[in-house]
Amino acid sequence: VLLNASPDLRQQIEQTPALWPHEGLRSTPITAVVLTGGDVDAIAGLLTLRERQAFSLLATLPVHAVLDDNSIFEVLDRDIVRRQPIMLDVPCPIGRPDGALTGLTVTLFAVPGKVPLYLEQPGRTPTLDETGQTVGAAISDGRATLFYIPSCAAMTPALANRLRGAEAVFFDGTLWTDDEMVRAGLGPKTGMRMGHMSVSGPDGTLAAFEGLGVRRRILLHINNSNPILLDDSPERAQVAAAGWDVAFDGMEVTL
Amino acid sequence: VLLNASPDLRQQIEQTPALWPHEGLRSTPITAVVLTGGDVDAIAGLLTLRERQAFSLLATLPVHAVLDDNSIFEVLDRDIVRRQPIMLDVPCPIGRPDGALTGLTVTLFAVPGKVPLYLEQPGRTPTLDETGQTVGAAISDGRATLFYIPSCAAMTPALANRLRGAEAVFFDGTLWTDDEMVRAGLGPKTGMRMGHMSVSGPDGTLAAFEGLGVRRRILLHINNSNPILLDDSPERAQVAAAGWDVAFDGMEVTL
Repeated sequence: VLLNASPDLRQQIEQTPALWPHEGLRSTPITAVVLTGGDVDAIAGLLTLRERQAFSLLATLPVHAVLDDNSIFEVLDRDIVRRQPIMLDVPCPIGRPDGALTGLTVTLFAVPGKVPLYLEQPGRTPTLDETGQTVGAAISDGRATLFYIPSCAAMTPALANRLRGAEAVFFDGTLWTDDEMVRAGLGPKTGMRMGHMSVSGPDGTLAAFEGLGVRRRILLHINNSNPILLDDSPERAQVAAAGWDVAFDGMEVTL
Repeated sequence: VLLNASPDLRQQIEQTPALWPHEGLRSTPITAVVLTGGDVDAIAGLLTLRERQAFSLLATLPVHAVLDDNSIFEVLDRDIVRRQPIMLDVPCPIGRPDGALTGLTVTLFAVPGKVPLYLEQPGRTPTLDETGQTVGAAISDGRATLFYIPSCAAMTPALANRLRGAEAVFFDGTLWTDDEMVRAGLGPKTGMRMGHMSVSGPDGTLAAFEGLGVRRRILLHINNSNPILLDDSPERAQVAAAGWDVAFDGMEVTL
């Protein structure tokens, strides 16, 4: 999340001593990075962590393969940044680059999604599948668990079972309706075409979470065409009435 | 330059209506992008111009080859972003993506430099050569010309001849002294190892420009270890006394 920090959040970081370098002149407190996909918004931020920043880089094999195939990511010196492939559905301790444990465990699991935009075949509509190109993350300290799923094309029965009764879920809030970008003249693509289920509607996120008993529900990864970004919109009110929060820069959640 | 905009500059852009979209909801006034190298700080900003932003992308063949080899840059849709290779030392009209001319001409010329960091061979010190991986740009409207050279490892006689009597030169101001990053404990590399000549010293930039008769001399691409970034440093005073300016976000130059 920090990797995509807005100017406001960066300013907040600059004003928060706890977030300043802990070691040396140029370190950050970032010990590990977990990738939930290979699309630009998930991986481009890695380029700002170059060149001598030590951290563990955890991702599925297909996502690591994307990084391997793009030589620009060699700015992350492999002697310093530990690239660690994660098997789907296997809990993985999050280590520091020196191997010491953080006490956190991450489990990646496939969700319906598509290949990154830049790997799409020209002229072909990509399929929405669960190959590990798009994943959710369950992060646990052994006591509490949060789910982080910034991109998801559909709520499957398996995903619903996984999330049932969860303490906290951050979930894909890209679009309010599937065709809102088309109607706004922002582009020709629907949400489905981009691999995102919508927040509203009978197959939408609000409906899909009804009855799952998730305590904290937080929408993130919100496109600037989505009216829930406006504090005073009816759609925001609808989201709030359904018990959801809308993520904001610098948000802190305590479980 | 805009591609590497700091939070301050972005805020300035947001407050300047002339810089807002001229056409449509998501356009920028950027008509063409000229790359002076393939290193991350020269090309990563392209990823923020995705996905439906039309512009011309001008660079040498080796730099285009770097983009071609890194699939992540396919987010720049080739139907919309016109990738245009430029021959060294041949003036090239800068066109809009629709082919209309801007009235500006750019000439790229090789300067001593190295391959991008992420293409270096492990364990080998890269050579400093003039293969077109690192270039300077002469940009002209037919009346006035400015030179933009953000990375340069040495002042060659050919480069000195090219710049003699120029109206304006933006030049590599990365380091004040070759070993300042080593001495500051920021890393093991000298300026030469990174492909940058220093500002000070007998082989430095201030000395190299003496007698060239360049009217406006502006240092840019300044590392945060370089004391000329401080308004009140003796090194800044030395730079100013030699007739140089230090570039800042939002700087405007009229020729």
